[in-house]
Amino acid sequence: MVDRDEQLAGLLEQVEALVKSKSYAALRDLFLPLEPADIAILLEESDTAYMPLMYRLLPKELAAEVFVELESDSQEMLINGFSNTELKEVLDELYLDDAAGIIEEMPASVVIRILDRAAPEMRRSLNEILQYPEDSAGSMMTMEFLSLKKDMTVADAFKRIRRIGGDMETINILYVTDPQRKLLGALSVRDLLLADEDDLIGDLMDPNVVYASTMEDKEDVAQALSKYDLLALPIVDLESRLVGIITFDDAMDVIEEATTEDFEKMAAMLPSDRPYLRTGIFDTWKARLPWLMILMLSATFTGMILTVNEEALAACLVLNAYIPMLSGTGGNSGSQASVAVIRALSLDEVDFSDILQVLWKELRVSVLCGVCLAAANFVKMLLIDRWLMQNPEVTLPVCLVVCLTIFFVVVFAKCVGCSLPILAQKIGLDPAVMASPLITTIVDASSLIIYFLLATALLGI
Amino acid sequence: MVDRDEQLAGLLEQVEALVKSKSYAALRDLFLPLEPADIAILLEESDTAYMPLMYRLLPKELAAEVFVELESDSQEMLINGFSNTELKEVLDELYLDDAAGIIEEMPASVVIRILDRAAPEMRRSLNEILQYPEDSAGSMMTMEFLSLKKDMTVADAFKRIRRIGGDMETINILYVTDPQRKLLGALSVRDLLLADEDDLIGDLMDPNVVYASTMEDKEDVAQALSKYDLLALPIVDLESRLVGIITFDDAMDVIEEATTEDFEKMAAMLPSDRPYLRTGIFDTWKARLPWLMILMLSATFTGMILTVNEEALAACLVLNAYIPMLSGTGGNSGSQASVAVIRALSLDEVDFSDILQVLWKELRVSVLCGVCLAAANFVKMLLIDRWLMQNPEVTLPVCLVVCLTIFFVVVFAKCVGCSLPILAQKIGLDPAVMASPLITTIVDASSLIIYFLLATALLGI
Repeated sequence: MVDRDEQLAGLLEQVEALVKSKSYAALRDLFLPLEPADIAILLEESDTAYMPLMYRLLPKELAAEVFVELESDSQEMLINGFSNTELKEVLDELYLDDAAGIIEEMPASVVIRILDRAAPEMRRSLNEILQYPEDSAGSMMTMEFLSLKKDMTVADAFKRIRRIGGDMETINILYVTDPQRKLLGALSVRDLLLADEDDLIGDLMDPNVVYASTMEDKEDVAQALSKYDLLALPIVDLESRLVGIITFDDAMDVIEEATTEDFEKMAAMLPSDRPYLRTGIFDTWKARLPWLMILMLSATFTGMILTVNEEALAACLVLNAYIPMLSGTGGNSGSQASVAVIRALSLDEVDFSDILQVLWKELRVSVLCGVCLAAANFVKMLLIDRWLMQNPEVTLPVCLVVCLTIFFVVVFAKCVGCSLPILAQKIGLDPAVMASPLITTIVDASSLIIYFLLATALLGI
Repeated sequence: MVDRDEQLAGLLEQVEALVKSKSYAALRDLFLPLEPADIAILLEESDTAYMPLMYRLLPKELAAEVFVELESDSQEMLINGFSNTELKEVLDELYLDDAAGIIEEMPASVVIRILDRAAPEMRRSLNEILQYPEDSAGSMMTMEFLSLKKDMTVADAFKRIRRIGGDMETINILYVTDPQRKLLGALSVRDLLLADEDDLIGDLMDPNVVYASTMEDKEDVAQALSKYDLLALPIVDLESRLVGIITFDDAMDVIEEATTEDFEKMAAMLPSDRPYLRTGIFDTWKARLPWLMILMLSATFTGMILTVNEEALAACLVLNAYIPMLSGTGGNSGSQASVAVIRALSLDEVDFSDILQVLWKELRVSVLCGVCLAAANFVKMLLIDRWLMQNPEVTLPVCLVVCLTIFFVVVFAKCVGCSLPILAQKIGLDPAVMASPLITTIVDASSLIIYFLLATALLGI
């Protein structure tokens, strides 16, 4: 979407020019046809001092839509500048789940002010949503869904949609509940449109609805929406009463966030919840230093193995030249296996019961890879190191030690790499933390042990 | 969703028992209330020999929905067992984009048979879709969308929906076109329901529609759907005529696939398009060996640097013990920066114009990290290596060399790590390939050069 990026860059220049020349009417006309997400980008990328001014140019409804798309620090800044009336106007236009999402990121003083200004009904609902744990389905649901009764006719349903459908987050899927608010079924607005006026909702609805509970992990719920291609997923409380829905757009956001976190954990960073360029230097530093420190200090063991074997190395210094290659190959082999398994775990393709199948697969793959790599390295050592570079220290036994080490290191690395994430998940840890960097450190130390064992056995040093 | 997994495992046992006892009516009753995605899993996890039999138990419409959810090898197996009538029945029930997706994975003989059996209109559309490049928006769109005219009334629109809405993939969003099929605007079915019977479509529609062209990259289009929270995105051809739409469920699949590919590339694997446990040993081996081989051979340079500096090492063998820690820390620092930037690139948060801003950020973060790591390591070397382990070789100058190297390596690694992915994207390469393994190899060699330069300068060896 390069064109769209260029368009935005062009728009940004226009916005800045219009702000400077104080042509506010023209600026408003420029904003009106744009998507809320794009207006949010324009507001944030131009001079912050003008953001409140530009924001106030937007008509009420569009303003609320743009507000939702802003980063939380921009939202906070705007709220702090709002009069109580302005704050109330924005809140009245917001959907409940968006309002809850915004509040979760705000400092306590702002939260109190928001709850104070919200309409009584919204305040009640917000208080309810805010009680759910941060990662639960309950915390991201909206209560603005449309429910029907089994004995309504299609005509009744349309009447209800016309009356209250405007305030709902979606009317594409409608839910059917009994008098105790228990979920009975669901139907789409298309089902209604294609049915006869006096058909009963109870006959049209699909009684087999995928649903989740308020306390389920929100990432699992988002994955379920994706797996079953659903527009929305109903959420029930512990008494099986329908209390809310989660829509596909929020699910997509949750999945995107979870994926970013996986990437970060796999690269030995603590997860951050803000875009890269909007995270401050100190926050980035705080997210990166802990694992670097832990991994640096744990490399002490690798160093100790080298110190212990200092004499063997001194006796055959050529062995030293192959250590980076061995630990690199081991680390890469291990992270291939671990990343493949971590991804399969997060897509729910693999679970603990598959561990033997996974190990058996990786064992065979690693034998194949190990043999090929060892053979290639054997040829390379003889052709390049011995013959081309004329290094007399590269003897056949040395080649043998290096190549056997490659083979065993690859097999060991892949088996450790594939099983650690599964075991981590089993004991309740995040499998992504078991990714490349940790595997690399484990494999580094182990590959040196294998190397020196083979060297002392085969070279007699 | 552990419960859902356990449910599935329980169902699988029931299915297998029912198949064995030939209780086909009971089996059918068990399938009926399930989601198509779950039935597909049950079919694939039970004995393959029974798959065609079980598949034939499903009623026509459900059968088609399940068919879409199967892996392509299962689909191929079923198609090969279908009579021509059966094949036609399945095809008639499929949505166009699903049919096109299935065909893309089939061998030529099967493709010909499918096109042969498809209804003439579907065949024409399939041929059109199949002409688009595999990664283009055109190849994943469906032509089954509902278009309206500007001068229709709401009542006309409802008539049209009732007449042809049943065959459309979605009626939640409706598109308005002119007589030349140019896209004029869009409206939701909610807009229709809340409007008066004789309101004109032209007055209700939103003329500012986000759209994409058939030749755009499908990943970009999927990201746009996610960014703008759209249910569907209209696709226009080079003459701006509306030719299809892409729906959110397909967009979610594309994003999931692209993310998996990014993970694979970052872990030095070639992308595979099948789930982990369903990829054969040889396919996995083929995906993993090339990068392992390239990285192993490129580690030759690192080895050469060690060989060249063999004498310096022999003179001060203690230096050797710190090499794994130095290259590990460098590699981890580099991959933190590269993964953060690759993710920001793929979420469109960063592009080439930001390169200086990114470099400046990483430079400051790396100085902070470098200072902390060097200081921690200095303390650790004095306390543990010198005082606790009583290693007399760990002198103050040696500590200084190691700690200075850490500092420079971290700064260098982060700067290389953040800029390579951006440069790669600029010249049209995939930034994900510039991730950890390649960065590690580059940083490995560079860190040794920095190490030996500092050692010769400060230790006089």
